[in-house]
Amino acid sequence: MSDILQRLADVVESRKSGDPEASYVSRLLARGEDAILKKVGEEATETVMAAKDGNRLGIVRETADLWFHCLIMLAHYGLGPDDVLMELRRREGISGIDEKTARVNDPRTEAERK
Amino acid sequence: MSDILQRLADVVESRKSGDPEASYVSRLLARGEDAILKKVGEEATETVMAAKDGNRLGIVRETADLWFHCLIMLAHYGLGPDDVLMELRRREGISGIDEKTARVNDPRTEAERK
Amino acid sequence: MSDILQRLADVVESRKSGDPEASYVSRLLARGEDAILKKVGEEATETVMAAKDGNRLGIVRETADLWFHCLIMLAHYGLGPDDVLMELRRREGISGIDEKTARVNDPRTEAERK
Amino acid sequence: MSDILQRLADVVESRKSGDPEASYVSRLLARGEDAILKKVGEEATETVMAAKDGNRLGIVRETADLWFHCLIMLAHYGLGPDDVLMELRRREGISGIDEKTARVNDPRTEAERK
Repeated sequence: MSDILQRLADVVESRKSGDPEASYVSRLLARGEDAILKKVGEEATETVMAAKDGNRLGIVRETADLWFHCLIMLAHYGLGPDDVLMELRRREGISGIDEKTARVNDPRTEAERK
Repeated sequence: MSDILQRLADVVESRKSGDPEASYVSRLLARGEDAILKKVGEEATETVMAAKDGNRLGIVRETADLWFHCLIMLAHYGLGPDDVLMELRRREGISGIDEKTARVNDPRTEAERK
Repeated sequence: MSDILQRLADVVESRKSGDPEASYVSRLLARGEDAILKKVGEEATETVMAAKDGNRLGIVRETADLWFHCLIMLAHYGLGPDDVLMELRRREGISGIDEKTARVNDPRTEAERK
Repeated sequence: MSDILQRLADVVESRKSGDPEASYVSRLLARGEDAILKKVGEEATETVMAAKDGNRLGIVRETADLWFHCLIMLAHYGLGPDDVLMELRRREGISGIDEKTARVNDPRTEAERK
């Protein structure tokens, strides 16, 4: 299951040189940064709206749209899903998933905390 | 690598009965739907801002925050990352990752398209 | 100057019975709640992006788009700009524009505070 | 009624040199661009959530929060509500409030359109 993000990222990568007429992803990549980021904001809003509707199928679809457009954004910056997953694993390793609180409340740098 | 999403989802699930004083996730889950959804919108905005800065490390961190808060949202509605990954795999199977265009432009239902 | 908000609200109101083919506003109103709210989220994201660009003309244009789509949203719910401006004036009257802090930090109800 | 936006903008302006300890606005201005823009995104999400709840009082409050934080953002960039209202009046003058459609669909520059 877990390989799907990387597989999709590979397809997105291949669309960088694709025909904007033939592919939504090629077209979005060709339109550039602002068009891509606008879609990330848009899909986040749609996720929130589906959730407010209590529409579980809608939540799954909109979250899929959101993550997929994140993959396009990551590709635009030469990044991929593994960069994000590694960051999540790093946090898990250091201090569990509640690391964020620590990070926010702790003025020390990460090095200082060790 | 992406087993990390399920591992994090398991931790989030366990925090549903956790001490709100001790854990950021338990606290957010206890605050309920609107607090969780607000965080999804907030992290999406922060992702867009990091991207506009061209800050690649920031993009990775903010996307990790966004995906992590999506996991908390999914858990709130009794859903998990596999629901989203399966939806992405389903699209890949039907029509490739550009299915969205097809879906948007094609007035037929999915059954009719087959 | 800010009679313009009410004038625009009057036009939006008149577009409720307009031809969706002929007018963007009629079309958006006809598409309903989710389409309107999606635009509010979208214009907010575009405002943030223009600001990150330090593009002052862009900030003005995107904020105008955002406020204009707020007027459409308000009209959809039978509300208008004066409802928002009166709320802002009410806050100014009670406790100055920093009332929000008070509201957030003060667990008492509004009645109790008087 | 309509002067409230400019009156609030004047107060926001005065808070640029205010005590961050004493005022929410001074504090937010002192935290800088990203903190301000994050609030704009956040208040937009809260507006959408209130609307999805069909909570008319909530819609008014959240739209007031959104517009107020737009005033803070504008002040940060040396702009004010009149810049936005003049932009809206300009559009009304040129082509009515549906000018946006024209602008989007018309590849000519504004000068060429005249």
